[in-house]
Amino acid sequence: MVGKNVSFYYKNVCEEVIGLEHGISKQQFDLLAKQTTPLIERLNHQRKERKVPYRDLPYHPHYPKEVCEMARQIRQECENFVVLGIGGSALGNIALQTALNPYLYNIDPKQRKGPRLFVFDNVDPVQFASFLDWIEDKLEHTVFNVISKSGQTAETAAQFLVIRQMLLKRLGAEGYKKQIVATTDSRKGTLRTIADKAGFRSLEVPDGVGGRFSVLSPVGLLSAAVCGIDIEALLEGARWMDEKVSQTNFLANPAAMNAAIQWHYYQKGKRISVMMPYSYALKDLSDWYRQLWAESLGKRVDEDGKEVFVGPTPVKALGTTDQHSQVQLYREGPNDKVFTFLQVKEFGRDVIIGECPTEAPELAYLAGAGMAKLLNSEKIATEYALIKDQRPCLTVFFDSICPETVGQFLYLYEVTTSLAGMLFRVNPYDQPAVELGKEATFALMGRPGYEEMAEKIRPFAEPDYRYLM
Amino acid sequence: MVGKNVSFYYKNVCEEVIGLEHGISKQQFDLLAKQTTPLIERLNHQRKERKVPYRDLPYHPHYPKEVCEMARQIRQECENFVVLGIGGSALGNIALQTALNPYLYNIDPKQRKGPRLFVFDNVDPVQFASFLDWIEDKLEHTVFNVISKSGQTAETAAQFLVIRQMLLKRLGAEGYKKQIVATTDSRKGTLRTIADKAGFRSLEVPDGVGGRFSVLSPVGLLSAAVCGIDIEALLEGARWMDEKVSQTNFLANPAAMNAAIQWHYYQKGKRISVMMPYSYALKDLSDWYRQLWAESLGKRVDEDGKEVFVGPTPVKALGTTDQHSQVQLYREGPNDKVFTFLQVKEFGRDVIIGECPTEAPELAYLAGAGMAKLLNSEKIATEYALIKDQRPCLTVFFDSICPETVGQFLYLYEVTTSLAGMLFRVNPYDQPAVELGKEATFALMGRPGYEEMAEKIRPFAEPDYRYLM
Repeated sequence: MVGKNVSFYYKNVCEEVIGLEHGISKQQFDLLAKQTTPLIERLNHQRKERKVPYRDLPYHPHYPKEVCEMARQIRQECENFVVLGIGGSALGNIALQTALNPYLYNIDPKQRKGPRLFVFDNVDPVQFASFLDWIEDKLEHTVFNVISKSGQTAETAAQFLVIRQMLLKRLGAEGYKKQIVATTDSRKGTLRTIADKAGFRSLEVPDGVGGRFSVLSPVGLLSAAVCGIDIEALLEGARWMDEKVSQTNFLANPAAMNAAIQWHYYQKGKRISVMMPYSYALKDLSDWYRQLWAESLGKRVDEDGKEVFVGPTPVKALGTTDQHSQVQLYREGPNDKVFTFLQVKEFGRDVIIGECPTEAPELAYLAGAGMAKLLNSEKIATEYALIKDQRPCLTVFFDSICPETVGQFLYLYEVTTSLAGMLFRVNPYDQPAVELGKEATFALMGRPGYEEMAEKIRPFAEPDYRYLM
Repeated sequence: MVGKNVSFYYKNVCEEVIGLEHGISKQQFDLLAKQTTPLIERLNHQRKERKVPYRDLPYHPHYPKEVCEMARQIRQECENFVVLGIGGSALGNIALQTALNPYLYNIDPKQRKGPRLFVFDNVDPVQFASFLDWIEDKLEHTVFNVISKSGQTAETAAQFLVIRQMLLKRLGAEGYKKQIVATTDSRKGTLRTIADKAGFRSLEVPDGVGGRFSVLSPVGLLSAAVCGIDIEALLEGARWMDEKVSQTNFLANPAAMNAAIQWHYYQKGKRISVMMPYSYALKDLSDWYRQLWAESLGKRVDEDGKEVFVGPTPVKALGTTDQHSQVQLYREGPNDKVFTFLQVKEFGRDVIIGECPTEAPELAYLAGAGMAKLLNSEKIATEYALIKDQRPCLTVFFDSICPETVGQFLYLYEVTTSLAGMLFRVNPYDQPAVELGKEATFALMGRPGYEEMAEKIRPFAEPDYRYLM
């Protein structure tokens, strides 16, 4: 029977594998346990006090039912489902789709269990125009899911206003409202106001859950359910992981171990954290992780308000592809990285490598083998090469790629991030630094009230020709 | 008239913009000029001695004609063109396609000027099986371009053997050979032997040009030409840039300036180099850059054989998407990064943001504006925010996205890399560290001759359950 669990493997960061200088010793593990255990307890306590609301998403009494019911409707109505969102309102959706639906889902109707899915998390005119050219005669069979807590996110608002105008022109107010689902605040805000007035169907963005922790809420669940992903199994996976990562025993809690190892290495000067799945399906999980890790831990001040300018840089890579792009650097460059591989035990499908032509006996070793074996051999080989150069390596094993394991993985990394925030002594739930850029954008776009900012930014709006080559 | 040039902008790394601690002073620029100018001369000299063969690719007497002629044939024959390659035999192809063809090229037949394009640079069984399911009844209308200098790259060889078996079974030897084009060594090697025996059409991988410098050879040009990209204009762009980057005057040579700035910051502890295009079309240029930079500069030993473990880590990002993922870290995390933005002056197309509903006057500032203006405002705003936090920012401006500017960009970064290699005092053209992983893969796959390695790697092939959580 194929398993449905993920597990966390840390032997290849140990001193006995990668040596004294770069490995973690028994004593260091003991110290990390001592430092981390009280934080697990504190996080459990905060959760009981309802201060960590993302932790309870897998147990929500209404969301799964509401999402499934709406998905059922939408699946009957449309051939194209389009998410308009950015950051936490897009990365989880993309990660779930890549992980749990076929590679050619959008291209091959035979491989689709639902409508095509598009997720737009940008305001690129060339990209969006290409999409509009294609979709304009398919609007009746297309549902747009606008996702924004406030409705004021400039990118999402801009996309929405484009689509709104297009739909109104084509379908009128009655037709228009049927093609849009708003995922937004339940009571207030720009998008809530618009949705209520227009009569859109809507779902809730939960209170107190930052975008990057929202994948297991209606934000991430609707597009998944619409595309035929079993969201109940996904949430079941998260609940299973919740048991594990709530344990106060450091040596049994993979989130605590993971957070502690990452934190330890940051202190030792390894400030880059590479996530490298050996699976195309899992590749966008590392993009989701990238936001989670960067926004949560990249902070100017610590809990006491002291300036610390802290934060590891998450980097996504992909095996085997990046062996032919990054591994030269990973092995011979500075030893300033921690590597996390994602490895799949049972892919569910395999492609058998064909016979080898007689004139090329040097390829005979491949003939008859499965690609799955080759892919996993390359992972083991790459890890081996890195270990030989004293580079610390972690692995998250997926028994298989299914909603349960993906749910487990998401929850594992969310709790890892909470605990890492505590170890780094920063607030992992805010993102104060994105404000200035937003305000500067308002100023450049001429939004009333930002005239002073517009003055400040003017000298930077056009290049100074003396420095242009 | 819309311009067709790229330009390099470096004001926002200067002391007067980002301050004494993180900015570059006049004196430091003078020193960089003094250090870099002789290297420009040395590189020009090496080139004259034919030691830097990639430099002459834009002037090649046969390649463009051969590629165009073969592309013309292929365009008449097929609806799907599939590249099997990895690393330098894939990243340039992908970058050109994303940059110069529409976003929905593969999905919308109206937006296509040639066959669909797929590039496979992995051996993921789930991904490849999804593709095979779809392509199996379209083999007669599909041409496969196998790209490998030697033919021994495990991933490419495995993909090829799968496709070979499938084609032989379906079309027989005569049909099979018509569906494959080999891009490989002109005289020797595994793929050359197979191609000659089977009677494949073929193109040459030039001698002495490493994969990551080969995009302007038949390696990168064929898929581009097949998909309707004007490769003559691309090469013309590269030639135009060649003039600029051959200049020995440091202040007029953007490759020298770029290399010097990146090298300077590495010495100062900024070991991460982020490339962040504000254009979806340009996003895969940063993936191409990522290989170029990492494999060329990530080196254990310097020119004298001394152990140095050197090399900046290239990171790809995308505006505006990553403003909602990475900018929190970029502004408030450690000041350990150099940022390079790619900014497009004239997108060629625009999407006008629609009217704003009366109940949401807070969005009125967007109504009627173009997405192009919003996207570029976000770039300026993000750069402004980074500057305020003393983070060094460079910009490569694209007058427009066209073959000429893309060709210029590619050549600019290739020469930047050569000069950076000289500044770092490493050999930018080799990649010794990828060998061990290859050998370990051979061992795990049971290739004869690797029995000793197989013994060594055995303890690492299965997880040790004591460290599995």
